[in-house]
Amino acid sequence: MNKNRLPQPLRGIIPPMVTPLRGRDELDVAGLERLIEHILAGGIHGLFILGTTGEAPSLSHRLRHELIERTCRQVAGRVPVLVGITDTAFVECLSVARTAAETGADAVVVSAPYYFPAGQPELQDYLDHLVAELPLPLFLYNMPSHTKLTFEPETVRRAMDQPKVVGLKDSSYDMPYFHDLCALLPARPDWTLLIGPEELLAEGVLLGGHGGVCGGANLCPRLYVELYEAARDRRIDRMLELHHAVHRLIQTVYSVGQHRSSFIKSLKCALSCLGICDDFLAEPFRRFRPEQRAQVQQHLEEAGITPAHPMPSIVTAG
Amino acid sequence: MNKNRLPQPLRGIIPPMVTPLRGRDELDVAGLERLIEHILAGGIHGLFILGTTGEAPSLSHRLRHELIERTCRQVAGRVPVLVGITDTAFVECLSVARTAAETGADAVVVSAPYYFPAGQPELQDYLDHLVAELPLPLFLYNMPSHTKLTFEPETVRRAMDQPKVVGLKDSSYDMPYFHDLCALLPARPDWTLLIGPEELLAEGVLLGGHGGVCGGANLCPRLYVELYEAARDRRIDRMLELHHAVHRLIQTVYSVGQHRSSFIKSLKCALSCLGICDDFLAEPFRRFRPEQRAQVQQHLEEAGITPAHPMPSIVTAG
Amino acid sequence: MNKNRLPQPLRGIIPPMVTPLRGRDELDVAGLERLIEHILAGGIHGLFILGTTGEAPSLSHRLRHELIERTCRQVAGRVPVLVGITDTAFVECLSVARTAAETGADAVVVSAPYYFPAGQPELQDYLDHLVAELPLPLFLYNMPSHTKLTFEPETVRRAMDQPKVVGLKDSSYDMPYFHDLCALLPARPDWTLLIGPEELLAEGVLLGGHGGVCGGANLCPRLYVELYEAARDRRIDRMLELHHAVHRLIQTVYSVGQHRSSFIKSLKCALSCLGICDDFLAEPFRRFRPEQRAQVQQHLEEAGITPAHPMPSIVTAG
Amino acid sequence: MNKNRLPQPLRGIIPPMVTPLRGRDELDVAGLERLIEHILAGGIHGLFILGTTGEAPSLSHRLRHELIERTCRQVAGRVPVLVGITDTAFVECLSVARTAAETGADAVVVSAPYYFPAGQPELQDYLDHLVAELPLPLFLYNMPSHTKLTFEPETVRRAMDQPKVVGLKDSSYDMPYFHDLCALLPARPDWTLLIGPEELLAEGVLLGGHGGVCGGANLCPRLYVELYEAARDRRIDRMLELHHAVHRLIQTVYSVGQHRSSFIKSLKCALSCLGICDDFLAEPFRRFRPEQRAQVQQHLEEAGITPAHPMPSIVTAG
Repeated sequence: MNKNRLPQPLRGIIPPMVTPLRGRDELDVAGLERLIEHILAGGIHGLFILGTTGEAPSLSHRLRHELIERTCRQVAGRVPVLVGITDTAFVECLSVARTAAETGADAVVVSAPYYFPAGQPELQDYLDHLVAELPLPLFLYNMPSHTKLTFEPETVRRAMDQPKVVGLKDSSYDMPYFHDLCALLPARPDWTLLIGPEELLAEGVLLGGHGGVCGGANLCPRLYVELYEAARDRRIDRMLELHHAVHRLIQTVYSVGQHRSSFIKSLKCALSCLGICDDFLAEPFRRFRPEQRAQVQQHLEEAGITPAHPMPSIVTAG
Repeated sequence: MNKNRLPQPLRGIIPPMVTPLRGRDELDVAGLERLIEHILAGGIHGLFILGTTGEAPSLSHRLRHELIERTCRQVAGRVPVLVGITDTAFVECLSVARTAAETGADAVVVSAPYYFPAGQPELQDYLDHLVAELPLPLFLYNMPSHTKLTFEPETVRRAMDQPKVVGLKDSSYDMPYFHDLCALLPARPDWTLLIGPEELLAEGVLLGGHGGVCGGANLCPRLYVELYEAARDRRIDRMLELHHAVHRLIQTVYSVGQHRSSFIKSLKCALSCLGICDDFLAEPFRRFRPEQRAQVQQHLEEAGITPAHPMPSIVTAG
Repeated sequence: MNKNRLPQPLRGIIPPMVTPLRGRDELDVAGLERLIEHILAGGIHGLFILGTTGEAPSLSHRLRHELIERTCRQVAGRVPVLVGITDTAFVECLSVARTAAETGADAVVVSAPYYFPAGQPELQDYLDHLVAELPLPLFLYNMPSHTKLTFEPETVRRAMDQPKVVGLKDSSYDMPYFHDLCALLPARPDWTLLIGPEELLAEGVLLGGHGGVCGGANLCPRLYVELYEAARDRRIDRMLELHHAVHRLIQTVYSVGQHRSSFIKSLKCALSCLGICDDFLAEPFRRFRPEQRAQVQQHLEEAGITPAHPMPSIVTAG
Repeated sequence: MNKNRLPQPLRGIIPPMVTPLRGRDELDVAGLERLIEHILAGGIHGLFILGTTGEAPSLSHRLRHELIERTCRQVAGRVPVLVGITDTAFVECLSVARTAAETGADAVVVSAPYYFPAGQPELQDYLDHLVAELPLPLFLYNMPSHTKLTFEPETVRRAMDQPKVVGLKDSSYDMPYFHDLCALLPARPDWTLLIGPEELLAEGVLLGGHGGVCGGANLCPRLYVELYEAARDRRIDRMLELHHAVHRLIQTVYSVGQHRSSFIKSLKCALSCLGICDDFLAEPFRRFRPEQRAQVQQHLEEAGITPAHPMPSIVTAG
């Protein structure tokens, strides 16, 4: 695989893949293969591994490297693979990036270093240093709820001066900020702007973004692909129908549990209910207990989501 | 060295040591040796490496292991060595802890995993899992400004049920919280409660804490030892004199620069000005530019701090 | 005027009117009349006085009462008048509401009481008490950045059980929250959901809202009316053109000044530049100094906004 | 009464008086008289009405004026009376201040205007405007949790240039900030620095403050007077004994209820249990229900607090 395979901009749905685990520091290898095939079968446009939904910060470096290799081998060039390299230690970022390049990934994704609160000039320096060493194109990943730091529009504008920086995924839930980024796009027609939160996919695409990095696309990949296409093609009635289906999933399947970890736990649990992969989670999280699993199971059944037809039944055929 | 050397409670000043670096991923070995001797000459009661002031999250795992080995060898049992093992990945925490045990450190220190926002029950589970695997006594490290998560008093109370958990360092700047922890101490007379921010050392010790983990003690170790002793012995006039000297340092030396990283940058710069160690910082930070270095130098001169007498001259002889 | 005049739901643009002042506690009466005519000439669908943009909390109660009377007299039933009654003191809320009813206003608008941090059950009690005493239909006003308190979806759902509560204006900038409210609408087809921030008007209307309460509509009322209509009618190209014009105004005219008060100061300044009303502001704010006024003037000129044609010239005729 | 009666600095305990109410907008007049006598019997050094604990923002202006008149008449010059004039409307601040001056109060107290987020230069302007119009000496009241705005040290330093500004009450819970203010005191030996949170009274006084504005002193005035005196006189053992008694009250009596309003509700409830005044609260709050009242009653009994001896029994005679 090579860099030329990465469309610029990269349009569509690029799911942030869950990392299937069988135990502490142990990949669920068979589950990983099934999950990748399940997602690719939905018609998605890229695969992002080692992001937040992939629990990357909770995984050992050894496991991260193993995951990259296995994923790239399994995907085998069918879609671009983006690899999260975010780490608080610069040297570890680079190490993951090198593995990504060597195993044939198409791009890397980096969020702000997230322990120390840094200022924007420090963040700009950091990016300059990083880009100079990277063997692959870079996407920025704006995730202030977890990193405590925003890529402010001026920092993004500056990063756009570097050809190797090719896009940004915004998971800030801050639509005025997203509009500020949209206003920067005319200066770099090859730049990609993606939105993270799936409940904002419709408006994000309608108002100028190129697609979404939707966690729920691990479970129902086609739902998000169709929502993306409806927004792209401005079929508003269809877009709203799919948007409401996504909202319904968020209020049911993804609202089981009471902590802010509900989304990842519910998602892994749902994938396990469908027989796709194990629901073991890396510390500090744990899989749902039986009561909560039963709730997820019930929500899936009510939505009509099955392994053979991973799509809410309330959505009419597209 | 062995566990029996660790006083319980551990009283006094345990500086969170700066990590001397010569470049990216390269220890300043000679600087490290000088720094350790400089700090120990101040009469401190323990040494805490790989904390926030030690830039631990920004260091590669390789370098963390090297630092632990060299530090333990250099200290050679003269004071207890505490090793920060905080990491977002559980497996990496354990790996650092094992190195600490093998090289003769006396305890490990862990903060909350800091990427994912966790709930208190998740944090409690995390501690239970961690303690079960640890080869050394554990101090908790409450650092919500960086980890986004507080060890709530009930979580601390629960942790006190485990003999292997031997204390807590609080860097929350939240004195009512600190008082809540003081109220827990009667149940564990061997438990250590330390305060992080040096501007709170006086009141922290007077009102029930056992000592402080003061970053400034890298530069002026005796100043903090004397402040601790004055508070412990309730020599209030002397305590206030020293407290004001600390406050003055914070408002001068440690206020150079404009971002929240000022403290670490200023501290490394000051140590470099005194010829103790290099002021290279790990990404995302950079050493001060010449103008800022000149300011630090001037503040040091005005305070009368010299390599031979690393103590503000306004403090009368103790 | 009577309650029957208020459409349910109320659709379109309902500008939050600036309060023209000549000095401390002194209305700019002639400016008020000009401003009302200027706004109404833009084809707006209602007028909201004594909101945040109207500086209501900074105005004496005497002046609030005077403003209500003069506004209702001037509007004379041409559009519905909504009156903000938010106050930290319940009794003062009611007093403003009674004046509103007596002078012929059509509805009142209340935000959470904003000094004490209240819990949701307390907020629900508060609403129950208030609604029981109100002489007019009530809109809720979600404004957590200023009140520190959100009307959580469950609190809104509960409020929908009361026929006298007829709608909500959301200024939270939180689109997932807005979608949660949209999902409540089927239960009350007469209920109105409006969005406050003008940069979110397009998506707010497209995805289920009934209109917007846009501060910029004081200056360029027709711009927002056309944007609303384009979103309502799903003319997406036209909607984007107008959305970008709004975004451009936000980044130019409304970005003069450096504090969070920039928007109100810029808006009053721009209205003054156009000769519509005085730009005196109630404490704690002050009108712009000449340099900043010159910047606003220049931005207006570059946008081609004139008293006779208060519309950015980059927008093609609708 | 006249301005000369106000000691400068004002040292000791100045309770922020609860406002006894019988119903919405109705003072509990007999309760008010009993409460004032109860508090004064404890040996306190001043009385602060219309603060946060006094629910001032929730009271109508009519009632605020009535309370000032009745309180000043009842106190009759026995201690200085300080009157909170904080209001979002400048004109209303002044109106309350004039009543305070006319009825013989000794000083007024103002917090930042609390609806609009203002910058420090705006806050400085605001103070300049206000001081120019005030008929009485002014205390600043730093209360960022409720006002969203801090009087930054530089703003305080600037305010100290005005002789009419005579002190500051800090309720930020931020001890490093408090130390920054202590460092300003040498420039104005007549300036008063008081601390709000009672759990910080001991350290606040020991480290340079002049006293405390402790809500709990409505219930147990002598407890706080003795704690103040012990800290002032550096009787550390006694100080700690009293500090722990205060901490115990906070963890029992004042922790009933689950919202952030617990303190005011518990305090009014406790005063009602002791027969001192009614526990009606202004909206948005409500008195405790019987279960919670029973808990408060039980905590009072366990502490041994009675109308005749309003002091925790665990405290030995002073």
